[in-house]
Formats: sequence, C-alpha cells, structure tokens
Amino acid sequence: MADRQIDTLLLSVGHDLPYLSGYTAMPLERLTMLVVPRDADATMVIPRLEAARVTPQPGVFDLLPWGETEDPTAIVGTLSAGARRIAVGDQMWARFLVELLPHLPDASFTRAVDVVGPLRMSKDDAEIAALAAAGAAVDTIAGELQRGEIPLVGRTEAEVSAHLGRRIIEEGHQRVNFAIVAAGENAASPHHHAGSRVIRENEIVLTDFGGTMDGYCSDTTRCVFTGEIPADVAEAYAVLHEAQAAGVAAATVGTPCQDVDRAARAIIADAGYGEYFIHRTGHGIGLEEHEDPYIVEGNTLPLEAGHAFSVEPGIYVPGSWGMRLEDIAVATADGPRALNNSNHELVSVDA
Amino acid sequence: MADRQIDTLLLSVGHDLPYLSGYTAMPLERLTMLVVPRDADATMVIPRLEAARVTPQPGVFDLLPWGETEDPTAIVGTLSAGARRIAVGDQMWARFLVELLPHLPDASFTRAVDVVGPLRMSKDDAEIAALAAAGAAVDTIAGELQRGEIPLVGRTEAEVSAHLGRRIIEEGHQRVNFAIVAAGENAASPHHHAGSRVIRENEIVLTDFGGTMDGYCSDTTRCVFTGEIPADVAEAYAVLHEAQAAGVAAATVGTPCQDVDRAARAIIADAGYGEYFIHRTGHGIGLEEHEDPYIVEGNTLPLEAGHAFSVEPGIYVPGSWGMRLEDIAVATADGPRALNNSNHELVSVDA
Repeated sequence: MADRQIDTLLLSVGHDLPYLSGYTAMPLERLTMLVVPRDADATMVIPRLEAARVTPQPGVFDLLPWGETEDPTAIVGTLSAGARRIAVGDQMWARFLVELLPHLPDASFTRAVDVVGPLRMSKDDAEIAALAAAGAAVDTIAGELQRGEIPLVGRTEAEVSAHLGRRIIEEGHQRVNFAIVAAGENAASPHHHAGSRVIRENEIVLTDFGGTMDGYCSDTTRCVFTGEIPADVAEAYAVLHEAQAAGVAAATVGTPCQDVDRAARAIIADAGYGEYFIHRTGHGIGLEEHEDPYIVEGNTLPLEAGHAFSVEPGIYVPGSWGMRLEDIAVATADGPRALNNSNHELVSVDA
Repeated sequence: MADRQIDTLLLSVGHDLPYLSGYTAMPLERLTMLVVPRDADATMVIPRLEAARVTPQPGVFDLLPWGETEDPTAIVGTLSAGARRIAVGDQMWARFLVELLPHLPDASFTRAVDVVGPLRMSKDDAEIAALAAAGAAVDTIAGELQRGEIPLVGRTEAEVSAHLGRRIIEEGHQRVNFAIVAAGENAASPHHHAGSRVIRENEIVLTDFGGTMDGYCSDTTRCVFTGEIPADVAEAYAVLHEAQAAGVAAATVGTPCQDVDRAARAIIADAGYGEYFIHRTGHGIGLEEHEDPYIVEGNTLPLEAGHAFSVEPGIYVPGSWGMRLEDIAVATADGPRALNNSNHELVSVDA
C-alpha cells in the first residue's frame, strides 16, 4: 500500500476478502466491507445478522456489526476519513462505491488488485496442489468425453452441459463455474451459451468446463468430433495443437506474459489462421476463474515461479466451426508444468 | 430518466440488463455495458468473443464489440461524454466504475435502481405466475422436510443443505441460490453458513432455501423440531406464527412497506421478544433474490398491485435457538396473496 500510495483498502464481495481474511462476503444488498487503513487496524463492517458467520481474528481485524436501520456506507466513510487514495476490490458492487463517493469527496479511487493481485498471483505449494487436484478432476471428465462415455449425438448442448455440471460436482468440486458445450458452427463463438441446438453426427463439439474445488478453480477445453474428421478440420487442429504446446513451452520463469501469447499466436498466424484467433491466449487462475496474470499482448509482466494460468489458443471460422485447446500451466523453477493431462488430440467419438 | 435528471444509464453484470435487453452479462473481467443515453440510441459494448451470445434487437440497442487489446472503459467514456449525471447498475463491478471515473471527471453518479427498480418492482401476471411456480416447487420440498422424508438427525447441516440443493434442482429450478440449514443454537444466526455441525435429537432445525426457476426466484423458510417441542419454543413459535400472518395480512395495496414490518414486529415486541427480532421483515423478490421493495422501517413506499416480497419475521435467542417463518407474498387488488402454502406450524419430526 505504501509503494502504491494507497491510504485505505476496501474489500467486499469478491476473492480478495477471503484471501486476506478467510471470510467470504454474502453477495447481497447488505454491505460487508473490510476497511484496511495503511497505518491503523483493519475493521470488518458487517450486517449484524451475518456477524456470527465470521471467525473472529483478533489482531487481524475488528468486527463492526451494523443494524438494519443504520447506513453502512456512512460507517465506511467515517472509517476511511482522511484517506486521499482508496483502493477498492474489483467485484465490490458499484452500488456501494456510488454511495461512498459523497462521503469521500476528496478521495481518488484505484483498484485493490494492484495491492492484492501480486500476493494472489504467486501460488504456494498448497495452492498449486489444490489447482492440480481440481485439474485432475476435470481431466477425468475430459477422458469420459473422449472415450464416448458421455453421449453427444442426439442430445442438446444444454443437456450435455448439465451432464458435465453434474460430473464436475461428483468429481469433488463444490461449485460449477461454467460448462460450455458448442456444436458445429456454434463452436465458432468462444463463449457460446449451451442451448437447445441438438448435436449431430459429423461435427465438432467444443467443451470448456470447470468449477471450484476446495477454493481453487479448474478450467479445461477439449474438442471431440462426432464422426470421421474431415481434412480441413484435422489440418487446423494440428496447428492449434502445436500452438498450444508452444504456448506452454514458452511459459518459463522470466518470460513476459505477452511472449507466451506471441508464441502460440505466431504458429496460428504463420499457418494462415491468424484472423480466426480472436482472443488472448490465457488468464491467471486460482481462487477466481480469471485473475492475474493475463496472457495477452501488452502484458510485459515477467512470469514468476508459482504463476498459474491458462494456455488456450483457438481457431474460430464463423458459420463453420471453432476449436480451442486449453490446459492450466504453472511456471516453476524447473520449467512449465501443465496441470491438465487428458488427451490433447482431436478425438473422433462414435456417433 | 428525465424525472430523475439522469443523462445516461450504464448497465452491466446484474439483473437490470437482462430485464431491459434479454441479455445477461458474463460475470467476468471483460466488460459488457449497455449505455443508454436519455436522448439517443442505446449501445451494448461487449467483448468481441461474446458478441454472438447476444440476440440482436435492432431499434432497442446497437452492438459494439471490442477486441482483446482495446480499452472498453474508454469506449464507454466516449459514449457517455457530456453526461452530467450517470446512473449505474447496482451489481456492476466496482472495478469498471473506478476505471470510468477518470474518463468522466465532471459527472456525478447515482444508482440505476432509481430508474429500473420501479419497473422491475411491479410484476405482471406472467411474472407472478413464474414466482408462484417457483414457490410451489420449494413448498414441495418443505413438505418433505415436515413429513420427515429428508433425514435430519445424525446428518450434518452441510449434508442436509446439499440434499435441499439437489431437490431444488430436481423440482425444476436451474440454480440454487441458497440452502441455509441451522440446527439448535446455530439457528440464532439468521444467515448461518451450513457446516459440519451434526443435527441432534430434540432441537430446532431452521431451513431457508430457494433458487431461480425460469428466471424468477423462490425463497421460503420453515423450521422443524427433532423431537417433542418444549414449552418455551412452542410459545415463541406461536408468537412468530401470528406475527408472520399479521405481516402478510397487512400487505394490502396502498400500505407503506414499513407498516408491514410494523405489523409483524408489534406482535413479537408485545410478546416480549422484540430484542430477538434483529432484522427487517422482508425483501422484494423477482429476477433477484433480494430487490425492491424492502419491508423495513423507514420505507414509506406504498405497496402497489404486483409488488412481490418476503414476509419473514424471526426470533433469535443467542446461544439457545432461533426460528423464522417465511412466505413470499404479492399485493393484489383482491388483497395479499401468499405464494407459499406449506404447513406454517412448527412440526415435530421423528428422530
């Protein structure tokens, strides 16, 4: 906070608060806010009826419960009085910032991720083990898809998505974060919403799924083909496969994040598919599905040991098909380590 | 917007955007924002890789996809240029407001709920039918609890919570919003987090659960007792039952919201339990679990036909036990209509 000239940190809904305090705010209209002044004790402002949820941590923060007819933003304003530069958590509801602004007319605001992000970005061994366990769980499901044990043809995308969701929970996650299932031309939409489209024979099916297991997230993408793979799809997939492997291989300690993106992108561009790779190569992962570091052009941050992130290039031909291949990787002193180890090929599944 | 001197409305993550546009923003770090100027056409700023998720609505809004290396807040800043007073959606990530502030140094900010809230608050017949269907689904589960068909004694709160969550999905909800299970002294914490506490014989078990079904939320609270109900608990429950019924009965068109709270609270206070009723009487419900109108002291808004909200008084004795009874009610021209109809008694379930 001193390095960044931040006087007060305000954390509410989102992952910074549990990372620092062990407590997750309820995502509702009653304000929970950890107020962390640079040079004074921290205070957790919390609805009185939720105070019992918090495990007291004397010496870390004081609890300040507020009653149903009190104004909690006024309380936070008082606790933040005099702060000139205030950092707020990314996912705090904008409502609370709007209500705080009049209480703090002289303050400027910035993102708490500048303070908490670097802490969260460097995973320790226990965190990497948690990410690896979540990764192994979704790998099991990817294997089922690739062996044809999860029926595809004749079912809707939404049905397969629900099936993946159930399996994510059965494999030990507490929460499903997403289960994208996109068939044929729908796979050209990277964040396609699984819908009523029935999966047919002889098309690509893109699946991208993950959840949260013991606090840490999984995220993997595999494509299968419901029939014999046509030459154009096979050719493109070979390029994608090579690009994804190159991205992982580039993820060594000290490499700027954008160079991982460039390593994957160059292979796709050189093969003539550059215009069809319309997103960044990856995102950090941890408590949150998407967090720092982002593997994107313009991010010159050098990778450090313990940085965990996705490497997920894609090729999307509008109206025809799309494909993406994704592993979570960790930068380590011994080189890049992939946390997903299911088959990386485009597998043909029996119709 | 004109009545409230709002020049521009900014909607992102949250329920205002789907209410007005039919599109739900992904709750991730890539900005989706519907920019609605008072006197010009609306524009939906959306990540390019999510543009295909949106059903185009010509004449309602234009789509403006942004690429991975563009700055979407700068785009929103340009679209909002000249606006003096900007209303933002409650659940928009604070991050985006923080990033917008420097682009709009002369603007003041307020809550979009002032514009969209009154629209969302008045449910039409289809919305009430959706709330009633969701309510009937959770009533089925409450009946199972009351008939002892969901085992309690010997299981942990977390196990019972997971069981309720599965049943919520099986009964037709797409999402579980919460499934509070609080046994004995834990029931004195209104928002208790279901944990490893094993449910025993001869104690109260408070369950408060709901989900989202076809867009609309359910929410009901019932308590059961795992054995013969002791006199002190029975006496308090009789008061609670009377208070909850009085709250519903008071919910007639034209009645200020706070008078519904007062009707329930007076009965609890008169019986000597006033200090143990530590929260408001209720909250509006619709697309969102908690929304306007809030049934709380200080809210003088008169109820209108179509307002839907919970009536859920509680009595919480710290260290001993807690109890709450909750129905969703709708104000109609014919008087209050309760959408939950499971048994309102404190039922003794066999251990």
